[in-house]
Amino acid sequence: MTDATPGSASAAAASASSHDAPPVPGPHVAVLGAGSWGTTFAKVLADGGSAVTIWARRPELAAEISMGKRNSDYLPGINLPRTLQADSRLAAVLDGAEQVYISVPSQTLRSNLRDVAPYLDRHAVVISLMKGVELGTGNRMSEVLAQELGIGGSRIAVASGPNLALEIAKEMPTAAVVASEDLLTAQTIAATATNRYFRSFVNTDVIGTEFGGVLKNLIALAIGIVDGVGYGENTKASILTRGLAEMSAFAAAYGAQPETMSGLAGLGDLIATSESPLSRNNRAGRLLGQGYGLAEVVASMQQTAEGLSSVAPVLELARARGVLMPIVEQVGQVLDGTLAPQDLAPHLTTDDLPQGE
Amino acid sequence: MTDATPGSASAAAASASSHDAPPVPGPHVAVLGAGSWGTTFAKVLADGGSAVTIWARRPELAAEISMGKRNSDYLPGINLPRTLQADSRLAAVLDGAEQVYISVPSQTLRSNLRDVAPYLDRHAVVISLMKGVELGTGNRMSEVLAQELGIGGSRIAVASGPNLALEIAKEMPTAAVVASEDLLTAQTIAATATNRYFRSFVNTDVIGTEFGGVLKNLIALAIGIVDGVGYGENTKASILTRGLAEMSAFAAAYGAQPETMSGLAGLGDLIATSESPLSRNNRAGRLLGQGYGLAEVVASMQQTAEGLSSVAPVLELARARGVLMPIVEQVGQVLDGTLAPQDLAPHLTTDDLPQGE
Repeated sequence: MTDATPGSASAAAASASSHDAPPVPGPHVAVLGAGSWGTTFAKVLADGGSAVTIWARRPELAAEISMGKRNSDYLPGINLPRTLQADSRLAAVLDGAEQVYISVPSQTLRSNLRDVAPYLDRHAVVISLMKGVELGTGNRMSEVLAQELGIGGSRIAVASGPNLALEIAKEMPTAAVVASEDLLTAQTIAATATNRYFRSFVNTDVIGTEFGGVLKNLIALAIGIVDGVGYGENTKASILTRGLAEMSAFAAAYGAQPETMSGLAGLGDLIATSESPLSRNNRAGRLLGQGYGLAEVVASMQQTAEGLSSVAPVLELARARGVLMPIVEQVGQVLDGTLAPQDLAPHLTTDDLPQGE
Repeated sequence: MTDATPGSASAAAASASSHDAPPVPGPHVAVLGAGSWGTTFAKVLADGGSAVTIWARRPELAAEISMGKRNSDYLPGINLPRTLQADSRLAAVLDGAEQVYISVPSQTLRSNLRDVAPYLDRHAVVISLMKGVELGTGNRMSEVLAQELGIGGSRIAVASGPNLALEIAKEMPTAAVVASEDLLTAQTIAATATNRYFRSFVNTDVIGTEFGGVLKNLIALAIGIVDGVGYGENTKASILTRGLAEMSAFAAAYGAQPETMSGLAGLGDLIATSESPLSRNNRAGRLLGQGYGLAEVVASMQQTAEGLSSVAPVLELARARGVLMPIVEQVGQVLDGTLAPQDLAPHLTTDDLPQGE
């Protein structure tokens, strides 16, 4: 790991991308999942000097990545690092991997892990790249990792932050965060996930880091709604700021550090999601703001916007611990059809008196 | 003040804007300064049920506001409330005013206050609507108020937040913050500065609230620069988030509460400024990002972008207390011509090891 400081990683990456043979490789790592985010993160790691193998379920996709250095379905037009390998055989991918990054659909994680467990190196650190909670159990992704793999917190990390995959794949400068209960683990993973265009910071608040990725979708919906109505930057900035306060209050009530929400996994991800026209939650919000009903919005979208299904469960959890979330409540009312989108506003709460920020 | 809760203020505002005679007026207040922000804030107060008189230096502008209910130079196309009055005689405007809101150019504040002092009611609360520090002394606006008027902290407040004047004048929903060392003062002013489209929250961190309005311009410059380079939402979200961390560290070193920076006067104002193409700091940054030199940028702008002149003094203050501000440092290097705009990045610091967020 000593060669994975930003300076030398940068040198390694520059060398790799100039089509020389790579220098002495860094850690041997696996990335499970060859969608846009898994492939982008594999590129980040390879450009940081690691020897990376992606697990792609389909052999033809594995072959395209390994030999064509492309993933044309998920990252069209992006050249992948020449050191990046892919394989459809899970056992081969996990063999000798010191770090295993996972980017599979959140609802399939548990069943995927049952296939992973037998081949996992007994010292390997497992890193979740996923956002969301498991339906039914309400478990966070790191909780599913701990349960299915039977490993402790020092072998588990989560990576999050503003991550519009295509922009990172294009090497636009980005900061991210790696969280683990064990600071040393977080530092090791962060050093591996750092290169000349991508830098990982660290924290030890796994709960907050994971909740950030869930809660931001709800505020992004609210911002999409007022955007659809036609309100301006002032209204959006007000909602974003007050929404962050709601996220922080919720996170604190569930054992997270509220300041994590002001970091990359909360605010950073929220802003990127809210400003990107490619975000599904933003798009769903804009349609609602234009007056389309929930059923029409859902029908018009190929993939569901995760925020739409998170509103009710998050509000239930908030009420259970007495957390006030007026903006998320208003989003719920817009979804129910009981509040006109133009009445969703950052300044309306149930209180009559001036409140603290 | 008992009738100035949001509920009744809202009713009063609705009544006023439907061209009925106003109901029993709320507090008698004065707004000094008839620029776009002073006039917009006067409209906010009048729509909240207060009896508002604006001081406009030019008699013809006072007449246009009082009789034509317009301020065509600064708020073209905006109809002002029928209850709003204006006067060019400072003594008449201040006579009986319980609250005096000030929105004059920050470098003229001290001399303006010397004219105000003789006429100020001895119980009046004075509220700064201004952003910036006095050149030469480095004083915040509230410090200048205290010095020139000889009044204590319980009679001083500052109002800040995301305030793109024209959007608020168009009644787009907005949240703002009123800060005073005295919570009761903050609550009184916040209740007055609240109506159906504008809500003021409160805090007691005057220092942080004022610093927010200065520091955000520096981060807005950085975001403008990467926008000009052509980087995407991910880079901007990363800079905004890490920039907020720098603002918080600076504010804490100078006696503010770091969490104030995550509120409306810090983050809220930062986002509105960064996303608005009308912001001078954003525009200056975009020109720098496109490769224009500082001299060319300054020459091309009618009014100076305040952030440009704040970089050096803020960095000096930061160094004096050992605060690291790598993004602001990089902005300074771009201004000096020693860093190419495309190398300004949220992930580059002087440290080689993974850092906490």
